[in-house]
Amino acid sequence: MFDLNAYLTGHNKRINRALESFLKTSGRTDRILEAMTYSLMAGGKRIRPVLCLAATEAAGADPEDALPAACALEMIHTYSLIHDDLPAMDDDALRRGKPTCHKAFDEATAILTGDALLTLAFQTLSSIELPKAEQATKWLDVIQLISYAAGYRGMIQGQMLDMASEGKQLTLAELKSMHGLKTGALIEASLSCGAVLGDLNSTRISMLESYAQNIGLAFQVTDDILNVEGDPEILGKAVGTDKLHNKATYPSLLGLEESKDFAGQLVENALQALESFDQKAEPLRAIAKYILERNK
Amino acid sequence: MFDLNAYLTGHNKRINRALESFLKTSGRTDRILEAMTYSLMAGGKRIRPVLCLAATEAAGADPEDALPAACALEMIHTYSLIHDDLPAMDDDALRRGKPTCHKAFDEATAILTGDALLTLAFQTLSSIELPKAEQATKWLDVIQLISYAAGYRGMIQGQMLDMASEGKQLTLAELKSMHGLKTGALIEASLSCGAVLGDLNSTRISMLESYAQNIGLAFQVTDDILNVEGDPEILGKAVGTDKLHNKATYPSLLGLEESKDFAGQLVENALQALESFDQKAEPLRAIAKYILERNK
Repeated sequence: MFDLNAYLTGHNKRINRALESFLKTSGRTDRILEAMTYSLMAGGKRIRPVLCLAATEAAGADPEDALPAACALEMIHTYSLIHDDLPAMDDDALRRGKPTCHKAFDEATAILTGDALLTLAFQTLSSIELPKAEQATKWLDVIQLISYAAGYRGMIQGQMLDMASEGKQLTLAELKSMHGLKTGALIEASLSCGAVLGDLNSTRISMLESYAQNIGLAFQVTDDILNVEGDPEILGKAVGTDKLHNKATYPSLLGLEESKDFAGQLVENALQALESFDQKAEPLRAIAKYILERNK
Repeated sequence: MFDLNAYLTGHNKRINRALESFLKTSGRTDRILEAMTYSLMAGGKRIRPVLCLAATEAAGADPEDALPAACALEMIHTYSLIHDDLPAMDDDALRRGKPTCHKAFDEATAILTGDALLTLAFQTLSSIELPKAEQATKWLDVIQLISYAAGYRGMIQGQMLDMASEGKQLTLAELKSMHGLKTGALIEASLSCGAVLGDLNSTRISMLESYAQNIGLAFQVTDDILNVEGDPEILGKAVGTDKLHNKATYPSLLGLEESKDFAGQLVENALQALESFDQKAEPLRAIAKYILERNK
């Protein structure tokens, strides 16, 4: 039996240690570094970096080598949360049970902290000690994958669509497309980066991308479900907010039960995409199943 | 006689064409791309990209090869202006004679437009078609240089210091250090990138960095002077605002005349740093002299 809890705990420790080391390159502490540390070390689930490391393992490579990519993905995810929480965007006061960055510091600092984490992601991706020049092209590929996924044809466009959709009745197709950009693109990039760094061939990279698309969507569907019936104490954030803001969600479009069936089907698809992988893909399989059972 | 005007016009055309091509990779037009184009093509002076190309030329290499770096530098400069202009920061309504991004669009779009341009910079830097793997390490070096200069130990820290200094009496040393980070770091990176791409050795890279430090500071001093005695029509922005906001500037600390002498001395230092370079550094020399004569 594969022990997902032990796996996640081990990787989370490894990722947190690496994130701290990327933050502490200069020694000095000041307000911007304090705010970056506050948001980056606020106890996120580290889903993207774990997926990146698990993809490297599924490819048969050492996840240690993919740590800079894993950390960069988490920095970008964190920056996007800081900016999404700003008064001009979602205007959220709480994140992971703690005051959001602009509440704990101030609005200007929060804008710059997001900028700084986004920039640090690329500094991290380019700070690799390279034994061989050929590896440099792999890292340029990773930078290309991540910057495209996080950019105006990926995550940022998803956020634009999300804002434009406020108060509107979205169709299921529109909702899927918005989530595919807002959260799906970076999750997909997490898998692709691990696969590229693990030297998988393009057929098998596509399989991991299919896995990623399905679990990315499944994660969003279960997020919407938790906003209906989750426990705010365990979640560390309020529930019922989607309904309150009249937001289009899977439960609002499909109903709660059909949303659960949909999430189950997506996870089934994700597992099928991994069929030709051996037991080294066991962590990816366990993560897919965990999405259905999670309560936070 | 070297014709700086013709040189700047030619390079500006080349840079603008390249910037447009990096924006138009997808065909589709939407609000985020519209806002990115609005700010990026708003008629900036293109100082950083020109310096990058001129450094490549001074190194004896083809400036065409450095265009992706030149464009990335301008994207980062533009993103920093968009975010600096936000209500939570400097709250400016006009930039280059046109409404700022958050005035022409809205605040949330302006935050995301800055994010998108910063991300596009790194997409641009990693999208190089590489004939040889060894060139990949050079581009990783460039990404490292730019991300460090633009990050929380460079430009972003400069902006933090600038905000913290509002209403305070800065010493000349504090003012220099703040500008060295806020504008100097990216100007220095512009030269270093061109030098790295042009395969200069480390001694000569240091000479270009010394040139950069001096003209970066000279540019800031003349900016402060223009805020006192410039023509708002020609500048495309209001003057007298520094005094109005009680901002520490070179004229306020040194007096107007001594500030002009200081700028002249800095340009002199910059020219001395180029002493061992041949006539291929003529553009860099002309740019240094131009800083003293500019009226916008």
